[in-house]
Amino acid sequence: MCRWLAYSGSPVLLEELIYKPQNSLVVQSLHSRLGAEPTNGDGFGVGWYGAPETPGVFRSTDPAWSDRNLQELAGHISSGLVLAHIRASIGSPVQQTNCHPFRHGRWLWMHNGYLDGFARMKRDLVMAVDPDLFPHIEGSTDSEVFFFLAQTFGLTEDPPAAVARAVGFIEDTAQRNGIAFPVQMTVATTDGESIWAFRYSSEGQSRSLFHSTDVSTLRHQYPDNPTLHGLSDETRVVVSEPLGDLKGAWREVPESTCVTLRAGEEQLTPFRPERAGS
Amino acid sequence: MCRWLAYSGSPVLLEELIYKPQNSLVVQSLHSRLGAEPTNGDGFGVGWYGAPETPGVFRSTDPAWSDRNLQELAGHISSGLVLAHIRASIGSPVQQTNCHPFRHGRWLWMHNGYLDGFARMKRDLVMAVDPDLFPHIEGSTDSEVFFFLAQTFGLTEDPPAAVARAVGFIEDTAQRNGIAFPVQMTVATTDGESIWAFRYSSEGQSRSLFHSTDVSTLRHQYPDNPTLHGLSDETRVVVSEPLGDLKGAWREVPESTCVTLRAGEEQLTPFRPERAGS
Amino acid sequence: MCRWLAYSGSPVLLEELIYKPQNSLVVQSLHSRLGAEPTNGDGFGVGWYGAPETPGVFRSTDPAWSDRNLQELAGHISSGLVLAHIRASIGSPVQQTNCHPFRHGRWLWMHNGYLDGFARMKRDLVMAVDPDLFPHIEGSTDSEVFFFLAQTFGLTEDPPAAVARAVGFIEDTAQRNGIAFPVQMTVATTDGESIWAFRYSSEGQSRSLFHSTDVSTLRHQYPDNPTLHGLSDETRVVVSEPLGDLKGAWREVPESTCVTLRAGEEQLTPFRPERAGS
Amino acid sequence: MCRWLAYSGSPVLLEELIYKPQNSLVVQSLHSRLGAEPTNGDGFGVGWYGAPETPGVFRSTDPAWSDRNLQELAGHISSGLVLAHIRASIGSPVQQTNCHPFRHGRWLWMHNGYLDGFARMKRDLVMAVDPDLFPHIEGSTDSEVFFFLAQTFGLTEDPPAAVARAVGFIEDTAQRNGIAFPVQMTVATTDGESIWAFRYSSEGQSRSLFHSTDVSTLRHQYPDNPTLHGLSDETRVVVSEPLGDLKGAWREVPESTCVTLRAGEEQLTPFRPERAGS
Repeated sequence: MCRWLAYSGSPVLLEELIYKPQNSLVVQSLHSRLGAEPTNGDGFGVGWYGAPETPGVFRSTDPAWSDRNLQELAGHISSGLVLAHIRASIGSPVQQTNCHPFRHGRWLWMHNGYLDGFARMKRDLVMAVDPDLFPHIEGSTDSEVFFFLAQTFGLTEDPPAAVARAVGFIEDTAQRNGIAFPVQMTVATTDGESIWAFRYSSEGQSRSLFHSTDVSTLRHQYPDNPTLHGLSDETRVVVSEPLGDLKGAWREVPESTCVTLRAGEEQLTPFRPERAGS
Repeated sequence: MCRWLAYSGSPVLLEELIYKPQNSLVVQSLHSRLGAEPTNGDGFGVGWYGAPETPGVFRSTDPAWSDRNLQELAGHISSGLVLAHIRASIGSPVQQTNCHPFRHGRWLWMHNGYLDGFARMKRDLVMAVDPDLFPHIEGSTDSEVFFFLAQTFGLTEDPPAAVARAVGFIEDTAQRNGIAFPVQMTVATTDGESIWAFRYSSEGQSRSLFHSTDVSTLRHQYPDNPTLHGLSDETRVVVSEPLGDLKGAWREVPESTCVTLRAGEEQLTPFRPERAGS
Repeated sequence: MCRWLAYSGSPVLLEELIYKPQNSLVVQSLHSRLGAEPTNGDGFGVGWYGAPETPGVFRSTDPAWSDRNLQELAGHISSGLVLAHIRASIGSPVQQTNCHPFRHGRWLWMHNGYLDGFARMKRDLVMAVDPDLFPHIEGSTDSEVFFFLAQTFGLTEDPPAAVARAVGFIEDTAQRNGIAFPVQMTVATTDGESIWAFRYSSEGQSRSLFHSTDVSTLRHQYPDNPTLHGLSDETRVVVSEPLGDLKGAWREVPESTCVTLRAGEEQLTPFRPERAGS
Repeated sequence: MCRWLAYSGSPVLLEELIYKPQNSLVVQSLHSRLGAEPTNGDGFGVGWYGAPETPGVFRSTDPAWSDRNLQELAGHISSGLVLAHIRASIGSPVQQTNCHPFRHGRWLWMHNGYLDGFARMKRDLVMAVDPDLFPHIEGSTDSEVFFFLAQTFGLTEDPPAAVARAVGFIEDTAQRNGIAFPVQMTVATTDGESIWAFRYSSEGQSRSLFHSTDVSTLRHQYPDNPTLHGLSDETRVVVSEPLGDLKGAWREVPESTCVTLRAGEEQLTPFRPERAGS
């Protein structure tokens, strides 16, 4: 059910993130290790920030492992803030508008997981999206509707609060519809300056999520590792599953947690949905 | 802005309808003669009825003129009731779920035209769709929402009345939103037994639509024409533009008209939207 | 490295072969059990014979597991002789012209395996193709060149002999180029009447291949099995891996064997390459 | 029959070249003004040079007018040397490996035109390609074989001479095969430093080709034109047809001419094939 990667740090070629690592996203598209599905061949997408006002987004329905254009771009585009995603669909069509990351204005959003019983809830959820935002929904995924609910609840002002409200709203709606455990998620969203990553599920058994150990710490542990020397101290990565096997390089993000990356710093805070009663 | 073809008669190979005519749909995909846009290269689709309960549908985003699979299928599939469509998008994404014909159950629907101001009206229109039907909307076109509104207003019981109510509802919604001439349409819909085709626009300047002259009549006119001898007497065709230049073979469908094809017979009746006040 | 299926018998809907079985080709596209690669998501193709002179062929680069058009066709096309293939590329581009089965005239050809060192041998192999056939090579796979070599060596007159000569020629060419074990293959080819399937590799460790037990025999074994009652006595299937778990339904094709299916009958004969010295 | 653009100058966003002009390449993909075919919807490609050793290439079979990824890239990639091409196929399959520009090492190549009678000549032409280069031919176009012949005849040492020999060889081969006017071409090729553009046809009626007037000259003519102020003095553009209507900005490249662009300078020299007898 999808795998993703969020990077913040010095500008690097996209290929350093997407292709080079031992268990890169492209490797994961063929055989992921910790994903609900080993194969994630229902499309991919990458969003990156640079000089232009809004981030660039490249999305394709081709499996990542065979897409030549992705390879080309990755060898020519550098960025200091990147969101990349490979998709395993559980029903909605494989089409470009259903690939992550989704973009609105300067914001990007991607999701691993699902909203259970989405078909039953879809109308209620879509109705709750701000009418001015509604026409911007392009695809048919639960992930995209989730993004627009978060925007409706104030994503651009206070992302953790907005996501908490959105999840709470979805859980309230699910309850009315007799759906027991509606939300399964790891989500990453960004405005091009900070990245907010979330790990949560209604049932408390969330998709895998890891964050990188501080690079200067790792350099002390592995003084001879060349890759580490190439990385800047500000390097911060949050991933569905570790990109490699270096011991100590990756720590699991706990259940019900929000990871905030900003200016090379990282902060973990508890995440709890804001229900109607709360 | 799209071109289409609806056929009813003895089973014929799809290629007889889609490829063989002088101004076939495939020719029209490259240069249509009477379309708002000469090129209709934003995908195509064909739906056909046979032994199975529901019609088969083949839709692709590839331009019809270069699609090899379409050519293959057309040479191997026969049917006595066929809807085929080539698309020229005016904004919504080029994706399979935005290609016509749309299908629901045993019904097919295709549309040449647009709903002006759709972005402004979309939320109101979508909210008027029967909640049980709502989750079946797969794409992002005005044409598909139009189809689901028609279903909501009773398409499966009384198609002309349902379409009249749907158009009326759209025009009422448009009025509230300050849109002057919302509906531009030629539409064809079918349940596999009858075909209903409509030509109407709020402004009274509708996309082109033609229907075929009775074949036995044409055979008298052209006793030596081999193509006509190959056609059965039940042959009925409604098309955006004539498939060939045979004089007398094609008659324009008047503005504000519904054409009903059933069991080899054809009936033309006036079409008028059912507005809230009417 | 690809999986395939060859069917001969009473006309059946393609979906009975491609979708319905427990370990169908579509299931194998996501996770094959015995393939060199579990995932075969680099395209698929199906060829089938019917009334027209030449077989129809539908090929797509989309993974079989998500292709809606394949599902549609499979529910509407029936045939008594079908070749279907799912692809896992080991280097050559994912494009329609590199999907199997390949067609020339009334003949179809598909291959699971590879010609080792093909890049080194390609020029010599291609030069050996009959100059009149040469312009018909459309793609860049070793499998397609293999097909055209077999045609050059008399496929349309004596398929087993032609394939033996083609393999022999490839092995002679490989020897001159210092390639130890050039041929890895299971191949199926047909003229619409008979099917010839081959299992062979230069190293003697060939890709998996199975053939179906005679259906009337199986019916005695399993008198209550509904699927078997639906199959005709002429049913013959050769597959890369069994489509289901029914004990005794599938027997392995031995190494270096040619299976000939004709008029409901099956014959196994030894297969040996015809080398220049032999 | 294709249209293209070659740019040399200060780094600019690709969208300045591909999207912004009044008669941009993307506009030409829908309706070109001077092309043999108005519509060029059989794919596109863009190659650009930057920091990496080899140029990046993005090629897609989607019509340029609807490709969102092209739009995204064009808004985020800058380069001082760009080749872009839109394709109208006259027979060979629409696939990524048949889109221009073709790349080998640091070289790019694109072509508007065709080699008449290519099917008859293909084997001879392909056999004349250097055996070491032969395995690198990926597609099935005459344009790509032409590129590899030029490489065989010394493209990397002396491009005008190599192209002259290649054209001469093709014309000699054509003569042996009874083909009267084999070569129809405008070609652009580059090593990332210089661009060589050619206009020639065996019949002397070549596809259209234009080159830009020196920018500082144009600035004197149009002192108030803002676009001109944004362009550097080194700007050199060669195009199939003018990108806009500014009088004096575009001059036709004469028949049988080679245009060399290097370091902001431009040189026109006569082009004549080097035949076996010459």
